[in-house]
Amino acid sequence: MLQLKIVIIGAGNVAWHLGKGLQDKGQIIDQVYNRSIDPAISLSKRLQCDYTTKIKDISSKADLYIIATKDSAIKKISESLNINNQLVVHTSGIEDINTIKHNRKGVFYPLQTISKKRKLDFKNTPFCIETSQCEDLNLLSSLAKLLGSKVYNINTHQRKVIHVAAVFACNFSNYMYMISEEILSKEKIPLEILNPLIQETANKINNHKPKDVQTGPAMRKDIFSIKKHLEYLKEGNKHDIYKLITENIIAINKHEL
Amino acid sequence: MLQLKIVIIGAGNVAWHLGKGLQDKGQIIDQVYNRSIDPAISLSKRLQCDYTTKIKDISSKADLYIIATKDSAIKKISESLNINNQLVVHTSGIEDINTIKHNRKGVFYPLQTISKKRKLDFKNTPFCIETSQCEDLNLLSSLAKLLGSKVYNINTHQRKVIHVAAVFACNFSNYMYMISEEILSKEKIPLEILNPLIQETANKINNHKPKDVQTGPAMRKDIFSIKKHLEYLKEGNKHDIYKLITENIIAINKHEL
Repeated sequence: MLQLKIVIIGAGNVAWHLGKGLQDKGQIIDQVYNRSIDPAISLSKRLQCDYTTKIKDISSKADLYIIATKDSAIKKISESLNINNQLVVHTSGIEDINTIKHNRKGVFYPLQTISKKRKLDFKNTPFCIETSQCEDLNLLSSLAKLLGSKVYNINTHQRKVIHVAAVFACNFSNYMYMISEEILSKEKIPLEILNPLIQETANKINNHKPKDVQTGPAMRKDIFSIKKHLEYLKEGNKHDIYKLITENIIAINKHEL
Repeated sequence: MLQLKIVIIGAGNVAWHLGKGLQDKGQIIDQVYNRSIDPAISLSKRLQCDYTTKIKDISSKADLYIIATKDSAIKKISESLNINNQLVVHTSGIEDINTIKHNRKGVFYPLQTISKKRKLDFKNTPFCIETSQCEDLNLLSSLAKLLGSKVYNINTHQRKVIHVAAVFACNFSNYMYMISEEILSKEKIPLEILNPLIQETANKINNHKPKDVQTGPAMRKDIFSIKKHLEYLKEGNKHDIYKLITENIIAINKHEL
């Protein structure tokens, strides 16, 4: 059975869930490092393990170092990490694998929207993995599979592209929900009324290409509805976003003619 | 038990599912009307009922007339419909209840994204209802409940607002998925890899306000990632949409400071 001694570097959303997930699957979380002390203590309590706030005190005896800090800290931490020939990985969607300065390096990127206040289901969290050495690819793959996750071998360039796509698919669609809620709450209508629509829109993607199930006024070139909607939104950010996206949906159709 | 004799006017997506749904729950679909013959025949076969393509041949003996045509046809059809004092409703999200010229009128608006090629689950399809006469409100409410749907009493103004909000929540979020897929397919990465993320983003809304679970580079003011993403997207529609939405997400945060 795979059993690694792991140091978790960082105490944010990814560290919070990944540390616990790996521990629940029999891995040994040796230590938590975080620059500021309160998150370090919280996570070390959650994992019942040691913590440190000093890079030089990070244990040199672990098998695997997972850098789950913010992107901009990865390089410096890697440079300061005084270990031998162990595997060091980061969990970033955008950072190059070579941001890590060690000989055995890798990326262990969970492709999911993660927050502490919400339980993370690893079965629904694909991992994009990449390593500098072949045998480490097997190791990270086994680790992800242990969590119940789907695993994809993805190089740095592909991962950066996935990261851009994920911004549209997740962050921007959530922002669309946010605008909906603002529009409804002004009229004291609860967002709840739109939940089934939001779920169905997302569910469709399991079986259909988004282009094949695009509906709405822009798709059917319903200029009357579009005009009414823009009048209602008046000026401002919602108006501008509605206009730009609508123009783009209409343009897709034009290309097809 | 509620059993109505119903004429379905129109043979598009809503007519297709609503006719079948009501029939499955014991209602009698008396006749289907559609201006063009092929869709009329298809739907009449599906419902094993009569059809006509002439407004003057629409049966005057039904209890309920459901106008599920495109919005712009509702007024004309209502004016041409030669009946006595029966209830006439439309299914539009944006048309005024008064677009219908009859004495007993109403709106029976299914708040869902509906296409013929996809099964419609009425349990996940809230109905927004409105009537000119009180007792008809009960009738439409019973009908929606018979389908297993949640029912909301929504006036014309509120319904129009919901319609705008639904464009953002459904049509525009699906367009965000479409952009993701385009970005991924250019690099030969299947959209499948983003499905769990899309599902989780939608699921979160069942328990959280969108604003509370907004994540991503714009939310955390990660200018480095935003710059990299804009560079990758270069110029064009994806670039412009990314820029506008990102600026708006950043601005939300500013208002909170």
